[in-house]
Amino acid sequence: MSPALDDTSRLCIHTITTKPWNVEQAIDAYSQAGVGGITVWREALKDRKPVQVGERIRAAGLSPVSLCRGGFFPAIEPSVRRHAIDETLCAIDQAAQLGAPLLVLVCGADAGQPLSESRRQITEAIAEILPHASACGVRLGIEPLHPMYADARSAINTLEQANDLCEQFDSQSLGVVVDVYHLWWDPHLKREIIRCGQGGKLFAFHICDWMTPTQDLLYDRGLMGEGCIPLQQIRNWVRAAGFTGFHEVEIFSLRHWARSQDDFLDDIIQAYLEYA
Amino acid sequence: MSPALDDTSRLCIHTITTKPWNVEQAIDAYSQAGVGGITVWREALKDRKPVQVGERIRAAGLSPVSLCRGGFFPAIEPSVRRHAIDETLCAIDQAAQLGAPLLVLVCGADAGQPLSESRRQITEAIAEILPHASACGVRLGIEPLHPMYADARSAINTLEQANDLCEQFDSQSLGVVVDVYHLWWDPHLKREIIRCGQGGKLFAFHICDWMTPTQDLLYDRGLMGEGCIPLQQIRNWVRAAGFTGFHEVEIFSLRHWARSQDDFLDDIIQAYLEYA
Repeated sequence: MSPALDDTSRLCIHTITTKPWNVEQAIDAYSQAGVGGITVWREALKDRKPVQVGERIRAAGLSPVSLCRGGFFPAIEPSVRRHAIDETLCAIDQAAQLGAPLLVLVCGADAGQPLSESRRQITEAIAEILPHASACGVRLGIEPLHPMYADARSAINTLEQANDLCEQFDSQSLGVVVDVYHLWWDPHLKREIIRCGQGGKLFAFHICDWMTPTQDLLYDRGLMGEGCIPLQQIRNWVRAAGFTGFHEVEIFSLRHWARSQDDFLDDIIQAYLEYA
Repeated sequence: MSPALDDTSRLCIHTITTKPWNVEQAIDAYSQAGVGGITVWREALKDRKPVQVGERIRAAGLSPVSLCRGGFFPAIEPSVRRHAIDETLCAIDQAAQLGAPLLVLVCGADAGQPLSESRRQITEAIAEILPHASACGVRLGIEPLHPMYADARSAINTLEQANDLCEQFDSQSLGVVVDVYHLWWDPHLKREIIRCGQGGKLFAFHICDWMTPTQDLLYDRGLMGEGCIPLQQIRNWVRAAGFTGFHEVEIFSLRHWARSQDDFLDDIIQAYLEYA
C-alpha cells in the first residue's frame, strides 16, 4: 500500500470502543497498530494515577486526545447538581493530569423536569466550571446527543443547540464535539458544522455507524461502513469547516465487545482506511 | 364526576394501541367506554370491506378520525417506489370508503441512500398522490418521525421539515400529524406547532409517553403520565395553534399488549382524563 493508504496518524480510538481491554492493554495495542491518538473513558482511570497513564500514553507514541466524560448536570435536587459540578471539576483536573487537551461533556437531563429547565441548569453549570477549565488549560467540548437520549442523558440534542450554547459564552475554552451517531439525521447538519468550524468551536470529531435495525438504544453502534451514516459526506463538511484534528472511533457495541479485541482493532483500522 | 371531568368525546384511540383486539372488538369496546373517535390501522382492514367497517364505526357512535398508514416512499429501486405509491393510492381509496377524512403518511427512508435523496423521493411521491387524495376528499397528514427512525422509517424527522414540505405544495389536502412521541425533544417544537396551526396544517394530534429507560426502539411507548413528555405543555401549544380536533392515543407497547385490554382501556381513559 502507498503511504497515503495506510496512514493512521489521525486515527484516534476511544478506549470504550475496546471495553474488554483495560487502559494499559488499549495503549499497547493501539500503539502497536500505529494508531495516532487515544481518548480515555474516565472509568478506565479507576485505581490509577492520571499522570502515570498520561506518561504511558506519550511513551507509547500516542496523543491523548480527550478525557470522556464530565457533565450530567441537570437534576431536580440541588445536592445532585452540586455533586455533578464537583465531579466535573475533578474530571477537569484529571484531564490536565493526563495531558488531555479536552474534556468531553455529556450534558445530562432529568426526566422529572422539563427539558427547558434541564437546559437552563446545563448553562448554569457550564458557567460555573468554565473558569476552572480555562485555568487548567483544558477545553470543554459539548457533545450534543441523539434525541433518543433526551430523557436522561442529554437535553442538548442538536448541533444548533450546542452552537447556540457556545455563543452564550465568550470563551476559547468552550466548544463542541461532533459525533456522527448523534447528528447524522439532522437536516441542518451541514449548515451547523460550517457554523461550528467557522466559529473555531469544532473541538473533536467522533465516528462510528448506525445499524439497521438498531437492536439496543445504547450498545448497538456499528463500525464505519456497517450502517447507513453518510460518513464521507459528513467528513467532507467537517474538513470544509477547517477541522484538522483526529477522527475518533467511539463504538458502544455488545456485538463487537464480545469478539476478539485484536480482530476488532484490525477491523477498525481497515474500516478507517476505507473511510479516510 | 362533573361532566367536564369525564368528557371523552374528543378522545380518539388508534386500534394499534389495543393490538390484541380485532377492529370489531375495538369498535365495540371503545364505543361502550364512551370514546369519541377511532383511527384504524390499515392492517386491521385485512379481509374486510372498508365501507362496512366504516358503517360499523358510525353505527357505534364513533367518528373515524384517520386511516394509518400510507407512505414508505423512498427506495433505491424504482419498482419499489412505484409499488409504494400504488399502495398509498389504494390506502387513499380505503380511507374514503371507511369515511376517514385523513390518511396518515409515514414517509419512509431507504438506509442504502442519502437522506437527501430519500427526502427528494418523498416530495416526488406526494406530488404524485396529492391530486388523487384531493379528488377523493381525503386529506394527507405527514407525520414526522423521531430521528431514531431516520434510517428506515422516515426521512422526515422534525416538525420544521414537515411544515417546509407542506409549504412546497399549495394544497388544502396536505398537512401534518403532530405526535408527541416523535417531537417532544425538539427545541423548536413550540415555534413549529404555532407555525403549523397558523397555516391551517395541523391535521391530527397523537399522544402517548416516553419511558425512561426505553427498552425497545419500536414497542416500548408509555401511557400518558408514565413517562417524561410534558404533555400538558405541548397540548397547550396545540390548542394555542387553533387545533380543536381529537386527541389520539397511539401506543405501541409489548408491555401493554400483554395485559387485559379491558383493563388497559380503563387505564387509557383514566390517563386521558387526568391529562385533558
